[in-house]
Amino acid sequence: MQGQSQQQAYDRGITIFSPDGRLYQVEYAREAVKRGTASIGIRTEDGVVLVVDKRIRSPLMERTSVEKIHKADDHIGIASAGHVADARQLIDFARRQAQVNQLRYDEPIGVETLTKAVTDHIQQYTQVGGARPFGVALIIGGIEDGEPRLYETDPSGTPYEWQALAVGADRGDIQEYLEEHYSESLDTEAGIGLALEALASVNDDSLTPEGIGLATVTVDDDDGFSQLSDEEIEAHLEERDLLEAEDDADEDDEE
Amino acid sequence: MQGQSQQQAYDRGITIFSPDGRLYQVEYAREAVKRGTASIGIRTEDGVVLVVDKRIRSPLMERTSVEKIHKADDHIGIASAGHVADARQLIDFARRQAQVNQLRYDEPIGVETLTKAVTDHIQQYTQVGGARPFGVALIIGGIEDGEPRLYETDPSGTPYEWQALAVGADRGDIQEYLEEHYSESLDTEAGIGLALEALASVNDDSLTPEGIGLATVTVDDDDGFSQLSDEEIEAHLEERDLLEAEDDADEDDEE
Amino acid sequence: MQGQSQQQAYDRGITIFSPDGRLYQVEYAREAVKRGTASIGIRTEDGVVLVVDKRIRSPLMERTSVEKIHKADDHIGIASAGHVADARQLIDFARRQAQVNQLRYDEPIGVETLTKAVTDHIQQYTQVGGARPFGVALIIGGIEDGEPRLYETDPSGTPYEWQALAVGADRGDIQEYLEEHYSESLDTEAGIGLALEALASVNDDSLTPEGIGLATVTVDDDDGFSQLSDEEIEAHLEERDLLEAEDDADEDDEE
Amino acid sequence: MQGQSQQQAYDRGITIFSPDGRLYQVEYAREAVKRGTASIGIRTEDGVVLVVDKRIRSPLMERTSVEKIHKADDHIGIASAGHVADARQLIDFARRQAQVNQLRYDEPIGVETLTKAVTDHIQQYTQVGGARPFGVALIIGGIEDGEPRLYETDPSGTPYEWQALAVGADRGDIQEYLEEHYSESLDTEAGIGLALEALASVNDDSLTPEGIGLATVTVDDDDGFSQLSDEEIEAHLEERDLLEAEDDADEDDEE
Amino acid sequence: MQGQSQQQAYDRGITIFSPDGRLYQVEYAREAVKRGTASIGIRTEDGVVLVVDKRIRSPLMERTSVEKIHKADDHIGIASAGHVADARQLIDFARRQAQVNQLRYDEPIGVETLTKAVTDHIQQYTQVGGARPFGVALIIGGIEDGEPRLYETDPSGTPYEWQALAVGADRGDIQEYLEEHYSESLDTEAGIGLALEALASVNDDSLTPEGIGLATVTVDDDDGFSQLSDEEIEAHLEERDLLEAEDDADEDDEE
Amino acid sequence: MQGQSQQQAYDRGITIFSPDGRLYQVEYAREAVKRGTASIGIRTEDGVVLVVDKRIRSPLMERTSVEKIHKADDHIGIASAGHVADARQLIDFARRQAQVNQLRYDEPIGVETLTKAVTDHIQQYTQVGGARPFGVALIIGGIEDGEPRLYETDPSGTPYEWQALAVGADRGDIQEYLEEHYSESLDTEAGIGLALEALASVNDDSLTPEGIGLATVTVDDDDGFSQLSDEEIEAHLEERDLLEAEDDADEDDEE
Amino acid sequence: MQGQSQQQAYDRGITIFSPDGRLYQVEYAREAVKRGTASIGIRTEDGVVLVVDKRIRSPLMERTSVEKIHKADDHIGIASAGHVADARQLIDFARRQAQVNQLRYDEPIGVETLTKAVTDHIQQYTQVGGARPFGVALIIGGIEDGEPRLYETDPSGTPYEWQALAVGADRGDIQEYLEEHYSESLDTEAGIGLALEALASVNDDSLTPEGIGLATVTVDDDDGFSQLSDEEIEAHLEERDLLEAEDDADEDDEE
Repeated sequence: MQGQSQQQAYDRGITIFSPDGRLYQVEYAREAVKRGTASIGIRTEDGVVLVVDKRIRSPLMERTSVEKIHKADDHIGIASAGHVADARQLIDFARRQAQVNQLRYDEPIGVETLTKAVTDHIQQYTQVGGARPFGVALIIGGIEDGEPRLYETDPSGTPYEWQALAVGADRGDIQEYLEEHYSESLDTEAGIGLALEALASVNDDSLTPEGIGLATVTVDDDDGFSQLSDEEIEAHLEERDLLEAEDDADEDDEE
Repeated sequence: MQGQSQQQAYDRGITIFSPDGRLYQVEYAREAVKRGTASIGIRTEDGVVLVVDKRIRSPLMERTSVEKIHKADDHIGIASAGHVADARQLIDFARRQAQVNQLRYDEPIGVETLTKAVTDHIQQYTQVGGARPFGVALIIGGIEDGEPRLYETDPSGTPYEWQALAVGADRGDIQEYLEEHYSESLDTEAGIGLALEALASVNDDSLTPEGIGLATVTVDDDDGFSQLSDEEIEAHLEERDLLEAEDDADEDDEE
Repeated sequence: MQGQSQQQAYDRGITIFSPDGRLYQVEYAREAVKRGTASIGIRTEDGVVLVVDKRIRSPLMERTSVEKIHKADDHIGIASAGHVADARQLIDFARRQAQVNQLRYDEPIGVETLTKAVTDHIQQYTQVGGARPFGVALIIGGIEDGEPRLYETDPSGTPYEWQALAVGADRGDIQEYLEEHYSESLDTEAGIGLALEALASVNDDSLTPEGIGLATVTVDDDDGFSQLSDEEIEAHLEERDLLEAEDDADEDDEE
Repeated sequence: MQGQSQQQAYDRGITIFSPDGRLYQVEYAREAVKRGTASIGIRTEDGVVLVVDKRIRSPLMERTSVEKIHKADDHIGIASAGHVADARQLIDFARRQAQVNQLRYDEPIGVETLTKAVTDHIQQYTQVGGARPFGVALIIGGIEDGEPRLYETDPSGTPYEWQALAVGADRGDIQEYLEEHYSESLDTEAGIGLALEALASVNDDSLTPEGIGLATVTVDDDDGFSQLSDEEIEAHLEERDLLEAEDDADEDDEE
Repeated sequence: MQGQSQQQAYDRGITIFSPDGRLYQVEYAREAVKRGTASIGIRTEDGVVLVVDKRIRSPLMERTSVEKIHKADDHIGIASAGHVADARQLIDFARRQAQVNQLRYDEPIGVETLTKAVTDHIQQYTQVGGARPFGVALIIGGIEDGEPRLYETDPSGTPYEWQALAVGADRGDIQEYLEEHYSESLDTEAGIGLALEALASVNDDSLTPEGIGLATVTVDDDDGFSQLSDEEIEAHLEERDLLEAEDDADEDDEE
Repeated sequence: MQGQSQQQAYDRGITIFSPDGRLYQVEYAREAVKRGTASIGIRTEDGVVLVVDKRIRSPLMERTSVEKIHKADDHIGIASAGHVADARQLIDFARRQAQVNQLRYDEPIGVETLTKAVTDHIQQYTQVGGARPFGVALIIGGIEDGEPRLYETDPSGTPYEWQALAVGADRGDIQEYLEEHYSESLDTEAGIGLALEALASVNDDSLTPEGIGLATVTVDDDDGFSQLSDEEIEAHLEERDLLEAEDDADEDDEE
Repeated sequence: MQGQSQQQAYDRGITIFSPDGRLYQVEYAREAVKRGTASIGIRTEDGVVLVVDKRIRSPLMERTSVEKIHKADDHIGIASAGHVADARQLIDFARRQAQVNQLRYDEPIGVETLTKAVTDHIQQYTQVGGARPFGVALIIGGIEDGEPRLYETDPSGTPYEWQALAVGADRGDIQEYLEEHYSESLDTEAGIGLALEALASVNDDSLTPEGIGLATVTVDDDDGFSQLSDEEIEAHLEERDLLEAEDDADEDDEE
C-alpha cells in the first residue's frame, strides 16, 4: 500500500526523480516499448539483419503501412518497437541528420554518430519540462568504415552497441534465444536464419511471411540497405520449416 | 476500485505515460472518434469510394453543412469521423500541404506523402504540452501514379494503409462486414454498393439518401474527385433495395 | 456518485478529453449559451430574418445597449446568445474578416467563408491551452451570390447551415415550433411572423416590442441588412395578436 | 454540501466554465464591486450626473485621495466602485484611448466607443489565462454629438447603457429608488437632487458633504466635466434637508 | 471549520478572487506590513516629518544599514514598513521615476505623480500571474508646488493622501494617537514632537535615539530632504521627556 | 495539527504570502544557511577579517576546493555559508558587477554598492515565479574610501551592515560571543584572534589550521585582500592555545 | 508517519526548499548516482587514473558502448556514475567548453576552469524551474600547468577537488579503502593498482578485464589521455591476483 501511493507521487511529473533516484516516466515509456511487437537486430560478419514482427489487425489493412523498418540512409536501416507515431518522429530526425551530415562533410554519416544524435534528442525530452519521453526503442544498424555496426536507443536516451538484440514484446525470451545461438562468425544468410528462429521461438515455432518485415545492410552490396520481398521471406521460412499453417495472422495487434 | 483510481491519476495530464505504457488522452480521443457517426473508405481497381453517415439533428438543418467528405486536392478526398471542428483543422492543414507541394514541385502531392504530413502534425499534439490531441480520424483516399490509395490517420498520429475500412460509430461491425465481402477486383460501381451495404448492415438494412454522403476518386476521370448527388445516391440505394421507408432520418446526432 | 466524481476529474482542465471522448469545457460553454436569452434565425425565399429576445433587467437600462443583433457587413447580420462580452469579441473578429476580404479581393466576403473563419477561431480556443472556450453561439445570416444563407457557430467551433434555428434559452421548444411551421416558400414578411410566433410560444404568446430585436437581410434591398424600429415591431406583433398587456417586461434577465 | 464542494471545484481556475455555464471568477469579481461604496450615475436632459460615496477610514486621510470620480476627457467623466487599484488601471487605459483618438482622428472620442474599448480590455482578462478579472465596475458618462450618454462596464466586460444606475454597495436598494423617481425630463439640477436622495435613502436620509463626490458633464458648458466643491454639495444637501448631524463620517470604509 | 477550509482554497493562488470578492494574497501582504516595525508620517504647515522605529537585532549591527527612510529626490522622502528587500525594489523604482521625470521634463517630479507611478507598479503584481504582491507599505512625503504632501501606498496598489498616518506594527494605536493630537497648524518642530510622542505611546513612553530614524522635507529649505542626527533626535526626546533609560534597545526585531 | 497543515498549504509555492504575512520559502532557505558550517566577519580599525569553518568530509578531499572565502575584487572579500553551488552563482554575479563598475567608471566598486547589487539580485528570486530563493548567506567585507565596511546578505535579499557577525551553523552562540568580546578599537591582528576564539567557542575551544579559512582586507595594504596560509593560521591558533590535538578533523560535513 | 507525509510535500517540486533547508530533488538525483556502477579517480605524482566498473547486462552487448570514461580534451578525461543519458549531455557540454577555450585563448582549458563551467551548468538545473537536476556525478581528471588535478561534480553543482575518490555504487566502502591505502607519493602505475584493488574490495577481490574501463592522463606523455586495452587491464589484474575465475560477469547491471 505504502509503496503504491508513494510511487504515484513521483510518476505524475515528467522530469523529477523519485526518492530512490528513478525517473518513472522513462520507465513507463519503456513499458510502451514492450507493448509493441518485437523487433530484432543481428550483426553478422558482413552486415546487419533487421527482422520485425508486423502482424496486422485486419486482413484489409495494407501490410506495407505497418512500417517498422526504415531506410535512414543508403548504408543505415532502423527497426522500431513501441509507439508508432513516436517512432516516425525519430526516424525523420535521423534522416535529417544523415542528410545534413552528407551535405556538410560530403560523406555518409557514421552509424555511431547518427545513434548519438538520436539519443541526445531523446534525452532532452526526459529532462526538460513540457513534453513526455518518446515511447519507442530503435535498432539502428549499418555499415561504418566497412564494418557492420548495430545500436539500440532506449527511451532514456542511452545508446548501446550490440552484436544481437531484441526490443519490444517478449524481449526477454528472444534475447535469451539469441544469446544461446549467436556467434560472431555468422554470415548474413545465417543471421537471417537466427533472427527468424528467434522470433518463431516465441510464436509456436511458426511464422507467416506476411507478418514479418526483413531488411539487411551488407558490406559488399553497392547500396547497402535492402528489404526482402514476401517471396524471399517465405523461402527463408520454408528452408527452416518455420512456415505457419496459415491461420493465426489476423489477430488484433496493439501497434 | 484500485484500477479505477490508478487510471485517473494518469489520464489528467496530456503528455504522460501510465505505468503500463499507455497514453490515456490519446485513447480518450479515440473514444471521441467513436462518438462520431461512421465513415467508410473502399479501394477499388479503378479508384476509391468514400461513404459517410451524415444524419442531421433537425430537419431544418442544411445537410450540406454536415461536412464529413472534403476535397483535399483534385485527386484526393478525405472523409472524417469524430470531433467536427477538429476535423476542419486537419482538412485545412491537408489542403495547405497539397497547395504547397504543387507550388514547390509543380506536381500533385502523393497520397502517402499527404497522409504522413497530417499524421506528423497530429503526433505533435500528443507529445508536446499545452494542447490536447485531435479527436478525429480521417480516411484519406486518392490516386497516386495512376494507382488508387487509401489511408487512415488515427488520434495517435499513426498512418495506416487499407483496402477497405470504417471509422466512427459501429466500426467493429462495419469492418467485419467489409472483411467478409471485400474483394480486390471490385470496380468503383461495386465498391459503392459494398460501402452502402456495409453501412446499411448496422442500420436495419435501410438508408435515406439524405443521410448519406458519397464521393469517389477515380483513375480515369479527368478531375478525379466527385461527390454524388442525392438522386444518384438514391438510385444506388434502390438498386440494392436499401432505401429507407422514410421515417427515421431526424434523430438527434451527436456530431 | 462515481459518475459525479469521475466527471469532476475531467472538466477542470480545458483541453483534455474525458474517458468517453467528451470535452467538458466545451459542453459547459454550451450551457453558458443556454443561460442567454433566445435568438432565432429564419431563412426565407428572399432573405434572412434575425429575431432576438432582449428583455432588460431594469426599466432604466437603455435597451439599445443590449446588443444581440450586429451588422457584420452590408450583406451580413449576426445574432448571438450567451456570454455577451465573448460575443463582442467574435463580432469584432467577424467584422475584421469582412473588411480584410473586401480589401484583399475587392468583393464582399461570402457568408460561408465568414462563418468558417469564425469557427476556426473558436476551435483554437478549445484545443490549445491557456484560455477558455467562447461561451456564445452566433447565428450568421446574409446574402451570398444572390442567395440567402443562414449559419450557426457553436462553442466547439463547428459550423452548421440551417433553414431556421433557435439558440439560447428554450432552444428545444422554439426549434420544435419552427420545425412544425417552417416552409421553404416563406417570404421575409412571413418569416418575421414565424420568428415572432415561435418566440411568443415560450412567452405565453405575448411579447413587447421593447423586449425584441429584429433585423432582416434581403436579396433585393440595396444595402441588405436593416434593423426594424419599435414601431415596426409593434405593428408586426399587433398584426399577429402577440402584443403583451404591458406588465412583464422588466424581470431580471441573466444577460 | 454537494453544491458547495462542486462550486469549489470550478472557482479556483480563472478561465473555465462551471457545468452550468458560469464563470465563477467573474462572479466573484462582481462581489468585489459590491464591497466598494456606492456610485451613482444619472442621465438628464442636458448632461450626466455622477455621485459617489467617498467616506474615509480616518479623519486624517485626505478626502481628495479617495478617487472615485475621474475626468477621462473634457467631455467624459468616470465613476467607479470596487477595487481601487484596479479602477486606476482602467481609468488610465480609458484616458490613453481618449488621447489616441484625439490624435488620430482630431476629434473627441465617442462615449460609446470609449466604453467598448474599455470592456474589450476587461473581457481579455476573463478569457486568457495568467491574470485575474478586474474587480471594479465603472460608470462612464459624457456628451456625444450633443447628447448625454451614460454607460456601465461590469467585470465580465459587458457594456450597458443606462438612464440611471447605481453600482457598488446597496446597489439593489438605490437602483429601486432610482427606478421609482427617475424621469427622462430631469434637468441636471434635478438629477443631482435625485442622486443625493437615492444615496441618502440607504444612509438614514442624511449625508455629509465630505463623504460625497459629485461631478457633472453638461451639454451647454464649454468644458463639459466639472467637479462640485464641498460648499456646493453642502448647499444641495441643505436644500433637500439631507445634511447629516455631523457624527457618522469616520467609520471604517473597506475601500 | 467550513470557513477555514474555504479560505484555504482561495489564498493559494495570487491572482484570484474569493467568493466574497477578496484577494487574499493582497491581504496577507498587508500582514507582512504589520510584521514590520512602525513608520509614521506627518504633514505640517511647512513640511513633512517621517519617523521610523529602527531597533536592531544585535548591538553589532550598524544601525545605518536598517534603512527605513530613503531620499527619493531632493524634495521627496520615503519611509517604509514591512518586507525590507521588497521596499528596496520600490524605492529604486521610485528613484528611477524621479530621475526620468527630471530628464524628460526638466523639472522635479510631483509627489502625487511619483506615488501613482509606484502604486501602478504595485498593482501589476496583484493582477498578473507569476509573481507575488509587494509585502511593504510606503509613506511618501515631499513638497509639490510649495505645498507639503503626504501619501501612502499599500500592497493592493492603492494611493492614499494623509495629514498624518502610521504603517506597520501597532498601526491602530499610533493612528488613534495621531487623530487625537494632530492639528493642521502644526509646524515641523511640533510635527516631530507629535510623531515621537505617538511612537513612544506604544513603547512605554520612552525611546532611544539609536532606535529611531527621523527625516524632514521642508518648504523653505533649499534642498528639502534632511535626516536628523542621533544628537538632534536625542535633544528632541529629552525636550519631551521621552528618553529611554537605556536598557531595551537590542531586542530581536523581525525586520 | 491545524497549524501544521495550514503551514504546509503555504510553503509549497515560492512566491506567496502565508496568512500571517510570511514567505516560507525564504525562511526555509534561511534553514539551508544554518545547515552550512559557520562563517565569521569582523570589522577592525584598519580592515576586515573573514574566518570560515571549512572542515572536509574525507581526508582525501583537497581542502582548497571547499571554497568558502572568495576574492571579489582587490579590495573586497566574500565569505559564505549555506548551499555551496548557490554561493558560487552569487560570487560570480558579484565579480561581474565589480568588473563592470571598474570598466564603466574606471574606479573600484564600493562595498555597499556591490552588496546592494547582490541583494537586489537575490530579492528577484523571492518575488518572481519559476525559481527558488538562493540558499546562502554572504559576508561581504572590504575597504571603501579608506574605511573598512562589513555587510551581510540574507536569503530574503536584505542587506545589513555589521561590526561583527556570524552566519551558518551555531550563529546564535558565536554571535553572542562576538557581542561580549567585540570592541571597535580592535586592530586586524586582534580581530583575527577574536574570530578564531569565537569559532573555537563552539568547538570545544580547539581548532585545526586545516579546518579553517582566513582572509583579511586591510586599509594600508596595497592589494587589500589576502588569504592566510595554514602556517600563519597555525601560528595564530598556537598563540591563543586553540590548536586542536589533531583527531576530530575528518567528520562528515554537510556542505 | 508525519515525517513521511511532510517529506512528500516538498519533494514533488524541483526547485523548492523543505522546512529544514533541503532540496529533495537534488538529494534524489544523488540516489540516481548511487544506482550507477562505481567509478574511481586517483591523483598520482605524475598523472591521474580513472577506473570504472562497466559490467554489461547481456553478453551480446558491445562493452565499448557502455561509455563511462570519456576524453574531454587531450589533457582531460572524465569518468561518470549515474544516469547515462544525462552524463552524455554533460560530457558534450564539457567538450564544447574545452573547444571554445582553445579557440578563444589559443590554449588548453584548465581542469578547474572546466570543472566550474560544468558545475555552474548543473546548478542552473537545480534553481530555475522547468527541468530536473542532472542525475549523474562526474570525476574530471587532467593536467594543468604540469600538475595533475582531480575534481568531482555532484548533482547540486558543487565542485570538489580530491586526491582520490569514488562515486556511484558502494561509494562508502571504496572511499574507505582509498583513505586507508592512498599516499601522495604514488606513481601512475601504483595508482592503477590501488584503484583496481579498491574496486575489487567490493567485488569479492576479483574482477574481469571486460568489466572494467581504465584510463590515465599523465604529465610526461605527449598526448596525455589514454585508455588501456583489455590485455593491459588483464595484465594489471593478474599482477595483483585480482583476475576473476570468469563466471560472474554478465549479471544484470542497472546502468
